Amino acid sequence: MIDIKERVRNKSLYAKIVSAEEAANSIKPGMNIGASGFTPAGYPKAVPLALAARMKQEHFQVNLWTGASVGKELDGALAEAKGIAKRLPYQTNDTIRKAINSGAIQYTDLHLSHVAQMSRYGFFGGKVDVAIVEACAITEEGHIVPTTSLGNAASFVQSADFVIVEINTSQPLELEGMHDVYVPLDPPNRQPIPLVKASDRIGTPYIPCGPDKIAYIVPCDIKDDVRPLAAIDDDARAMTGHLIDFLHHEIKAGRMPVNLLPLQSGVGSVANAVIAGLADSDFENLTVYTEVVQDGMFDLIDAGKLIIASGTSLTPSPDGLKRLYDNIAEYRKKIILRPQEIANNPEIARRLGVIAMNTAIEFDIYGHVNSTHIMGTKMMNGIGGSGDFARNAYLTCFFSNSIAKQGSISSVVPMCSHFDHTEHDVDVFITERGIADIRGLSPKERARVIIDNCAHPDYQPMLREYLERAEKATGYAHTPHLLHEALSWHTRFLETGSMK
Amino acid sequence: MIDIKERVRNKSLYAKIVSAEEAANSIKPGMNIGASGFTPAGYPKAVPLALAARMKQEHFQVNLWTGASVGKELDGALAEAKGIAKRLPYQTNDTIRKAINSGAIQYTDLHLSHVAQMSRYGFFGGKVDVAIVEACAITEEGHIVPTTSLGNAASFVQSADFVIVEINTSQPLELEGMHDVYVPLDPPNRQPIPLVKASDRIGTPYIPCGPDKIAYIVPCDIKDDVRPLAAIDDDARAMTGHLIDFLHHEIKAGRMPVNLLPLQSGVGSVANAVIAGLADSDFENLTVYTEVVQDGMFDLIDAGKLIIASGTSLTPSPDGLKRLYDNIAEYRKKIILRPQEIANNPEIARRLGVIAMNTAIEFDIYGHVNSTHIMGTKMMNGIGGSGDFARNAYLTCFFSNSIAKQGSISSVVPMCSHFDHTEHDVDVFITERGIADIRGLSPKERARVIIDNCAHPDYQPMLREYLERAEKATGYAHTPHLLHEALSWHTRFLETGSMK
Ligand SMILES: CC(C)(COP(=O)(O)OP(=O)(O)OC[C@H]1O[C@@H](n2cnc3c(N)ncnc32)[C@H](O)[C@@H]1OP(=O)(O)O)[C@@H](O)C(=O)NCCC(=O)NCCS
Ligand SMILES: CC(C)(COP(=O)(O)OP(=O)(O)OC[C@H]1O[C@@H](n2cnc3c(N)ncnc32)[C@H](O)[C@@H]1OP(=O)(O)O)[C@@H](O)C(=O)NCCC(=O)NCCS
Repeated sequence: MIDIKERVRNKSLYAKIVSAEEAANSIKPGMNIGASGFTPAGYPKAVPLALAARMKQEHFQVNLWTGASVGKELDGALAEAKGIAKRLPYQTNDTIRKAINSGAIQYTDLHLSHVAQMSRYGFFGGKVDVAIVEACAITEEGHIVPTTSLGNAASFVQSADFVIVEINTSQPLELEGMHDVYVPLDPPNRQPIPLVKASDRIGTPYIPCGPDKIAYIVPCDIKDDVRPLAAIDDDARAMTGHLIDFLHHEIKAGRMPVNLLPLQSGVGSVANAVIAGLADSDFENLTVYTEVVQDGMFDLIDAGKLIIASGTSLTPSPDGLKRLYDNIAEYRKKIILRPQEIANNPEIARRLGVIAMNTAIEFDIYGHVNSTHIMGTKMMNGIGGSGDFARNAYLTCFFSNSIAKQGSISSVVPMCSHFDHTEHDVDVFITERGIADIRGLSPKERARVIIDNCAHPDYQPMLREYLERAEKATGYAHTPHLLHEALSWHTRFLETGSMK
Repeated sequence: MIDIKERVRNKSLYAKIVSAEEAANSIKPGMNIGASGFTPAGYPKAVPLALAARMKQEHFQVNLWTGASVGKELDGALAEAKGIAKRLPYQTNDTIRKAINSGAIQYTDLHLSHVAQMSRYGFFGGKVDVAIVEACAITEEGHIVPTTSLGNAASFVQSADFVIVEINTSQPLELEGMHDVYVPLDPPNRQPIPLVKASDRIGTPYIPCGPDKIAYIVPCDIKDDVRPLAAIDDDARAMTGHLIDFLHHEIKAGRMPVNLLPLQSGVGSVANAVIAGLADSDFENLTVYTEVVQDGMFDLIDAGKLIIASGTSLTPSPDGLKRLYDNIAEYRKKIILRPQEIANNPEIARRLGVIAMNTAIEFDIYGHVNSTHIMGTKMMNGIGGSGDFARNAYLTCFFSNSIAKQGSISSVVPMCSHFDHTEHDVDVFITERGIADIRGLSPKERARVIIDNCAHPDYQPMLREYLERAEKATGYAHTPHLLHEALSWHTRFLETGSMK
């Protein structure tokens, strides 16, 4: 067994160090498991693998609640063992996705800031039975030092009947001190969250727990399943350029401070490209208040342009991970990890005035956004934190390529096939073609700006024609639509393989 | 001229007392007017009537920004004079609605809590040129004592180049002291809003202004254009019954305090019926944190069951108004009026944990809500504050009758024809048929509960059939839809006059 005694600082807890199998045996069919983890970072690995092995023998299921997506040792292994009845709040795993889209797993796609409080309120059918948390160490007082993410771990530990801690020796002890754990009280006792700058620390550097609540401690040395980032392509570079021009314009117009406002940036390659693009720009003293701290932010830190990156998860690429660990003492001064209930909190997003930048699957001419469903029916990942930020930001931007699948799909459509963010929530759309600033516009005004600035030239004439026919047919109603045609672009794609 | 000298406590301001016509002459074509008013309460009347008369002669337009809907002397008169180019953020006026749905007025339908800050940020094209505010009085210091609503008046006054105050002598001076004015700083300087109970006072009882900013003072005695409430019908009574049963169940399950949490209740007859229904229930020590204080809340106060009603507008029926004014000293102890930026604030809604209760036009089997559009194209009123509360509440409920137009429309449809609130935002649907508690459910699970509990029996078989065919056709995808049929209920209604 891997030696973890150095990391278990309360010696009375040595007796609870067991194998992953023994800990997994404590998990009963039908339990609600609250796991640490947010993106493939900071999630338990050894216990889920042992649990999956047991499930293959004993054929039972549990409900899995996490921070967001987690790595293959948790989502992948349990889904392959057909061991998940209900999954929430987010996933990006192929096996789970297939199970969700074939009715085998019931998936509840939730705003990430709402999950911890809803689980405490008892809105998910029962409370957390067991919390499984990856840790760097356990303190003398029996508190848990988390690893590369916080997610909902602190709240799950607070609510759980018992806790399983996985001490992961692949996670450097230097992560200690990077976290800031604050779990709000629930109504009617909730107080203002005392955070007024992205760099404020308002909690503890550990997850409060105490030795009694810890039932099992399991050693593990499996690394976070981090993945390489796609290379930054010309489209992503073009989008970044449009955004940076726009931000300069906003500063000139007096609508934005010269060092901008705290940046929130979604996951994936466009998001990373935008952050990396800022490193080459002339902006200075930037701050980040986001979910996921990615490679691009290390570039900003190295360039001396970032004061602070606050998030709930550290999810570098394999290269980025090496870079982080090589210089962790320096990066640690500029990175804070918080519970997602705070990282994504509407109170804070609105107070700080974040610039929210997320990616859409498609958006429509009136400004609605689909973040989650392929052709209106198949779940891709989930809404994640995009709504938490979009709804409360100072400035809400959505990015997308103007086309998908080599141009057979237009990402700008007459009507979205699914709705995650409504017309009331978006300020700016950005594709590689340009930027549509729809602030203060009526739907008919928005449609023209979106078609002209963001749609692909192959689809612009069709979109204009739809708009004009819809206007005439409805007598220039507030939101002109031909309801029998509104989704015909999607059905045409499903029938012919192209929206053209 | 009506004598208002007693109400203008700063004598140096007497010189600014002018006729409505003279004040209206200061308004130039293309100006952005920020007016007080929220529902037909507390809006300016004399100056808009004079402005409309001028517009009929001189043919020019302005942009009209308010708190929410306002009465006929403002929205109606200016729209009849074809004097409005852009209108935001909410309306309920027939003339304006027709103009919006025929392309004559550009209407921007916004979350009500966002309006003041977006206008300060300069997101609507320029700032407020002139604020026109109805007042009870002007203090010695030149501050403005508002009347029956606050809306966005305080923020508009702060931003405006100059201010026109309408002193309305039909508004009793006893309203003084009912208001609590707090305008937050903007990012990056915003601080926590120091409100932790619905009854907290955090600001001033007047709108800070100062004598210099006041350009004109106009006497007026036109009453608020309040309207009678529809009688409470059996359907509304049934919905109230379902809600009260559900709340009892939640208390028993330990998910709700015995005196509930602060109630937010939308406008209209169902909302009023629910509040009135609580007066007959055994709940005690209730609190209200809402937009509009309606008649039902007087019932609750009279029954000794309500500790505090916090809102941004006092909008009783004509009977309710009489009742209020007959006993204003008593009611004033229990009523606080705040700027809508605070009344509808996401930070506060989430901190207090409000129970949000709003009315939908239609909702779909997967839990999306249309609050604004008739058959997907024609604007009814607007999203109002429903999103501010729905997105941040402890518990989010939407009400609707299961059918409309004598049963030729099902308000439960396969897919909404417009989307204002998404599947991620709703906990509970209530129709006269029953209640669907969809917390924690996947879309396919939700569909069954919604159809079984909320849809009208005439439409249940059709909805079940759609669901089952969609499940089969998509291989039980996450959100099963037949895209070529999803909106066919609406097109059938448009073509045949019935969804059947
Ligand atoms: C929207 C989202 C899926 C885009 O991710 P991405 O990695 O930039 O997307 P890609 O361009 O690689 O597209 C992903 C897939 O969708 C397909 N796609 C893209 N646009 C499409 C469209 N309009 N219609 C149908 N499919 C589309 C792509 O072809 C690709 O398919 P593949 O997997 O078969 O190759 C992702 O950002 C997401 O899940 N967002 C929601 C959550 C979120 O915003 N999180 C951050 C919050 S802080
Ligand atoms: C949704 C809303 C319009 C319902 O108001 P209401 O007074 O209870 O509604 P009614 O039942 O009288 O219906 C209004 C009209 O819509 C029609 N209608 C109702 N359901 C319909 C449906 N599913 N499809 C088409 N029309 C429908 C009614 O027939 C009626 O038409 P009419 O004016 O021709 O008679 C209203 O609550 C609203 O504007 N909400 C959005 C803003 C909000 O929620 N504010 C409160 C926030 S704090």
